[in-house]
Amino acid sequence: MNLFVIGIGLIGGSMAKDIKRLRPEVAIYGIDTSPAHLKEAMALGIIDNKSTYSDLPKADMVIVTIPVDVLVAELPKILDAVKDDAVVIDAGSTKSLLCKTVEDHPKRRNFLACHPIAGTEYSGPSAAIEGLFQGKTNIICEVEKTAFKLQERALEFFQQLGMRIRYMNPEAHDRHIAYVSHLSHISSFMLGKTVIDKERNERDIFDMAGSGFESTVRLAKSSPAMWTPIFKQNKQNVVETLEEYIQNLEEFKRMLIADEYGAIYDEMNNTNKIREILKGIIPLIKQ
Amino acid sequence: MNLFVIGIGLIGGSMAKDIKRLRPEVAIYGIDTSPAHLKEAMALGIIDNKSTYSDLPKADMVIVTIPVDVLVAELPKILDAVKDDAVVIDAGSTKSLLCKTVEDHPKRRNFLACHPIAGTEYSGPSAAIEGLFQGKTNIICEVEKTAFKLQERALEFFQQLGMRIRYMNPEAHDRHIAYVSHLSHISSFMLGKTVIDKERNERDIFDMAGSGFESTVRLAKSSPAMWTPIFKQNKQNVVETLEEYIQNLEEFKRMLIADEYGAIYDEMNNTNKIREILKGIIPLIKQ
Repeated sequence: MNLFVIGIGLIGGSMAKDIKRLRPEVAIYGIDTSPAHLKEAMALGIIDNKSTYSDLPKADMVIVTIPVDVLVAELPKILDAVKDDAVVIDAGSTKSLLCKTVEDHPKRRNFLACHPIAGTEYSGPSAAIEGLFQGKTNIICEVEKTAFKLQERALEFFQQLGMRIRYMNPEAHDRHIAYVSHLSHISSFMLGKTVIDKERNERDIFDMAGSGFESTVRLAKSSPAMWTPIFKQNKQNVVETLEEYIQNLEEFKRMLIADEYGAIYDEMNNTNKIREILKGIIPLIKQ
Repeated sequence: MNLFVIGIGLIGGSMAKDIKRLRPEVAIYGIDTSPAHLKEAMALGIIDNKSTYSDLPKADMVIVTIPVDVLVAELPKILDAVKDDAVVIDAGSTKSLLCKTVEDHPKRRNFLACHPIAGTEYSGPSAAIEGLFQGKTNIICEVEKTAFKLQERALEFFQQLGMRIRYMNPEAHDRHIAYVSHLSHISSFMLGKTVIDKERNERDIFDMAGSGFESTVRLAKSSPAMWTPIFKQNKQNVVETLEEYIQNLEEFKRMLIADEYGAIYDEMNNTNKIREILKGIIPLIKQ
C-alpha cells in the first residue's frame, strides 16, 4: 500500500510513525510546503519518500493534516488527483465548511471527513509521537457519503491506530467541539495574556506560578497558524461559547463583589462534578 | 522534636510524610476537626499520635494547614497555647489578613507566615504524597517579625523538604498570587460550568473532550471549602484580575466578530511567549 501524508506535523507524523511500526510493508510518501519539515521527517524516519502532488495518482490512502484554511483550498485538488479507489482522510478541527466545500465534488465518495481528538500543544515533525491515537476518539462525519469499501479501508486503519469511532453530522461536531476544545484554547490564551500583561510591570510574578497555572495555560503554547483558521471557520459557535463563558465569569465577579460566598461555594461545588466526567475521559486520554 | 500538624490534609500530610522519612526521630502529632481524617492519617502512618490543642505546649514546631478563614480564627489561639521557643508555620494561600490579624499578638515572633506553592487538585490525608515540595517555591512574608532562631529552625525544615525560598510582603504576595493562582482556578471552574451547563441538553459532548480540555478544567476539581475563603480574603485583587481577564476575552470576541484574523493571530503569537516562561517554571514543578 502507498500511503501519502500531506502535512508532516504532529498529527500526520504520528499516524505515519504508528503505521510504519504496525505495517512495515506500507510505503509512506510525505508532501509538505516546508522543505525543512520534509527533510526533518526523512531524517527522523517518519516518511520513506519526499513527494509532490504529481505522485498522488499512486496513492491508495491519503492523509491530509494541514491547517483548516489550507485544507478547504487543497482538498478539491487532492481529490482531483487521486485514482478512483483511493481514500482521502482529513483530520481538521472543523467540519462544516469542509464538507460543504466538497459536497458536489465528483470524487466526494473518495473522501472521509474525520477529526481525531488527539494532540499536544507542540507542532512539526519532531512533535510526532508513537501511540498518540491509542484509545482516543475519532469523530467521523457524513460517513454515508463515502464509498463503502473505502470506509472499510479507513476504519481498519483507525482500528490499527487504536481509535474509537463516533459518528456525527458536521454541524453537531462544530457546535460541540467549540465547547470542549475551541473555548479551552481561548480561555488559556487569554489567561496567558492577562498574566503576561501584568508581568510587564511586576517582575517575579512567574516565580510564584505552580502546576495549577501551568495546567491552565498549557494550550496557550499552541500554534496561531493552526488555530486562527479554526476560529474563523467556527466563528459563530465560538462566539456563542465565549458569550456564555464571559457571562459565567461576570456572574462570579458579581457574586464576589456582593459578598455572596454561599452562592460561590455552591457554584464551585456543582462544578466539582467535572471530577466524575473527567474520570470517564482521562482513561481514554492517558491510555 | 515534637512536630504538630493542625489540619491533616494534602499539604500538612505531605509535609509530615517527608519529615517522617527524613527525620525518623521526630514525633508527629496530628490535630484535626475531622475524626475520620485523624483516623485515616494514623492508619496511613502519616502521624504518630492523635492530639488536641491541650497538648500544644509540648510542640517545638507547629504546621497549620487549614482553610484560610479557619486559619485567621485559630492562629491567635494556637500562638496563645505554644511555649516561648516554639515556631508556628502556616501554609495559607492569602497572607494580608492573616499577618494583620496577628500583628499585635504577644507571640507574633513565634509565627512565620508562609505559602508553599505546591499542591494538587485533591484533598484529605489520602491525597498526601512524598516529595511534593521538592524544588517548589515557598513564599515567606514579614520574615523580620519572626524570632531569628525560630526562622532558622523553619528554614532548616524547608531546606529538608527541598524548597526554594522567596521573601515578599503580604500585600505583594496577595496581588501577584491572584494572577498566577486564583484567576487560574476561577477560569477553570467557569470553563467547567459553561460546558456542564451546555451538556445538560447535549449528551455526548464529553465524548469529544481530549487532553486539552482535561488540562484547562483540572482545577475545577478543587475543594470549594478551601477556595471560597481564599476568594473572600483576596476579593479586591481577584476582582481586578477577573476584570482584566474578562476584558481580554471580550476583545478576542470583538476581533472574531469583526473578522480581524490578523490581529487574532498576532495576539496568540504574542502569548506564545508563555512557552519560554513555562520552560522556566516546569522544571521546578516536575522535579
